[in-house]
Amino acid sequence: MKAVVPFKTVNAKSRLSAVLTADERTKLARLMLDDITGVLREAGLKVVLLTTAPFKYDAEIVVSEKDLNSALNDFLSSASEPVMIIMADIPLITVKNVRDMLASPADVVISPGRGGGTNVQFIKEPQKYHVDYYGASFLDHMRIAGDSGLTAEVFDSFNASSDIDEAQDLVELHIHGKGRAAEYLRTFMALDVSKGRVKVMRDVQKVPEGRHPGRSVATQ
Amino acid sequence: MKAVVPFKTVNAKSRLSAVLTADERTKLARLMLDDITGVLREAGLKVVLLTTAPFKYDAEIVVSEKDLNSALNDFLSSASEPVMIIMADIPLITVKNVRDMLASPADVVISPGRGGGTNVQFIKEPQKYHVDYYGASFLDHMRIAGDSGLTAEVFDSFNASSDIDEAQDLVELHIHGKGRAAEYLRTFMALDVSKGRVKVMRDVQKVPEGRHPGRSVATQ
Repeated sequence: MKAVVPFKTVNAKSRLSAVLTADERTKLARLMLDDITGVLREAGLKVVLLTTAPFKYDAEIVVSEKDLNSALNDFLSSASEPVMIIMADIPLITVKNVRDMLASPADVVISPGRGGGTNVQFIKEPQKYHVDYYGASFLDHMRIAGDSGLTAEVFDSFNASSDIDEAQDLVELHIHGKGRAAEYLRTFMALDVSKGRVKVMRDVQKVPEGRHPGRSVATQ
Repeated sequence: MKAVVPFKTVNAKSRLSAVLTADERTKLARLMLDDITGVLREAGLKVVLLTTAPFKYDAEIVVSEKDLNSALNDFLSSASEPVMIIMADIPLITVKNVRDMLASPADVVISPGRGGGTNVQFIKEPQKYHVDYYGASFLDHMRIAGDSGLTAEVFDSFNASSDIDEAQDLVELHIHGKGRAAEYLRTFMALDVSKGRVKVMRDVQKVPEGRHPGRSVATQ
């Protein structure tokens, strides 16, 4: 059974550019991908990376220049067995989460992301379903399942719902992460609990002289 | 078995004041409380409201002028059976979530909130434990459990992790809510999926003339 992971090979995680350099974003995105593909493999799935450009990675690579929805729907329409679609920026997801989704009796299992997004979908009969990301995709996917006569389960997981998109999301990775992406983040970012909402900030004690702007930079 | 719900009776949900009037915030806070206490009762728990001032509500009311931590720790130190502490602003939580927490074999079950917070705790032996909210309380609570020789389980739930604090959080309630708070919100707020991140905005078609500023107001 295959898990498809859309992965942006160029300018990944651009919404983190206020707090991370381009190199840091590239490295973080790659480590999040490694964490997730490791989890998927441990859960027994074959990993397919869906990219917009050729990319060297230990997985089946599908390159498509189409938009995300078209590329994924092409994949679904040619699939002959159940498919999981999983975003590359949810590094808190665990093997248990994936196994629980695989074990659901529903035709489609949908794990919501924050703000109306869809972070993971497990689709038993890919030929009968299509995806529609962007906007409030969670609602769209529930509707598509209903319109297609498929039963849908909403998968209730903090881990799977935590997509790392913006500076504030790094707090979740810093606090709850157990994989390589979190380990990397913690080498140069510290938690700032000084007042109000917890933030991440550069840890001046951990970054070698000359590699940071001289003082800590709060994320907001 | 008791569930303690801290509830702010004055100026509730002040961080929503940019998008909701004082009356709307008061009503929303009350409906979220009703949703949560309904869930707790259905799961077989007795509800205790911890307030800073007398409040008329169908539950045991404990009034304390102490800060949240001291008031809760007073309660724990005099408790003779397991206690659940649950925040009043997590209206997505379900009866199944509460039952799953109650069924955990761990000494302390901790359900994280976003940004390092703690939304629910189920404490088997309250005399051996104390709470420390504010800051990255999730990490503090895990440490307190460890220091006290208690086993801790992290409860992985999107529902329980979704605290409604800021304008952006209303999106979760609008999309995923099944209770009275969500129903109320949807009477006058609509989803705005026009561009970028999904937001909530006043629904000018639903609000009677004269009760809105004449045009829709996005939350950010």
